[in-house]
Amino acid sequence: METSEEQKYGVRRLEMSDKGKGFIELLQQLSVCDSVSDKEFEDRFRELSSLGDDHVICVIEDHVSKKIIATGSVFIEKKFLRNCGKVGHIEDVVVDSSTRGKQLGKKIINFLTDHARSMGCYKVILDCSIENKLFYEKCGFKQKEIQMVRYFV
Amino acid sequence: METSEEQKYGVRRLEMSDKGKGFIELLQQLSVCDSVSDKEFEDRFRELSSLGDDHVICVIEDHVSKKIIATGSVFIEKKFLRNCGKVGHIEDVVVDSSTRGKQLGKKIINFLTDHARSMGCYKVILDCSIENKLFYEKCGFKQKEIQMVRYFV
Repeated sequence: METSEEQKYGVRRLEMSDKGKGFIELLQQLSVCDSVSDKEFEDRFRELSSLGDDHVICVIEDHVSKKIIATGSVFIEKKFLRNCGKVGHIEDVVVDSSTRGKQLGKKIINFLTDHARSMGCYKVILDCSIENKLFYEKCGFKQKEIQMVRYFV
Repeated sequence: METSEEQKYGVRRLEMSDKGKGFIELLQQLSVCDSVSDKEFEDRFRELSSLGDDHVICVIEDHVSKKIIATGSVFIEKKFLRNCGKVGHIEDVVVDSSTRGKQLGKKIINFLTDHARSMGCYKVILDCSIENKLFYEKCGFKQKEIQMVRYFV
């Protein structure tokens, strides 16, 4: 039986067992993430799960290779501003370098954006490099401000 | 008895009674915030308080006028990236337009940055306009990425 592209590359929430499916290795394509033990993973997974819909990590699994090939997260910030408004913050979006061109990044962004909207956010924001600006524009985003950072380590 | 500048403009955490000291009116100098009832304020205050040190709003009160004249917030994002690292997100920094030039903005940023560091964050980030870039550079920040936004309303 053939699997449609939609079934093959559906977006779902992160599960505890995804560590064994290359989730951490995928994050390594984005930034430093060299040593996460099973215990550390489980502790952080439970910590984030306790936030419920206020912090969601989604993934796409390749059902042939059984590997996680795309991920992204969104958390909901609650403000006093904007009449006690809420803002979705998208973070840590990455698509496996060997599977680009299948619109997986767009699926991830759409999933996270839809979640923020369903939570009642008045906007969703993210920071990205200049190189990725065009991709996010295609996802309906516009450039607004600049990101400033101060590192402690 | 004279009050030193330090005592006069000390930074402390937001308290429930600060709504009566012009906290919402101060936020209005930053963005839309036109109708927050006492009930809405209390509900949001309790919601944020339940996050403990993971979401801190600080204020500076003018002890002569009994008004809140500066504020800012930081929340702690927990990641899998960076070996289950944490990132501080600074939001909603505003200094009353009539009291600028007293370094109150810097006091707020230092308080929030110190909090993020004490929570074990590897970095603290914020988004700002090009006009405010120099101010944040003086606070030890560097420009890194660009902010993209998608509005729902």
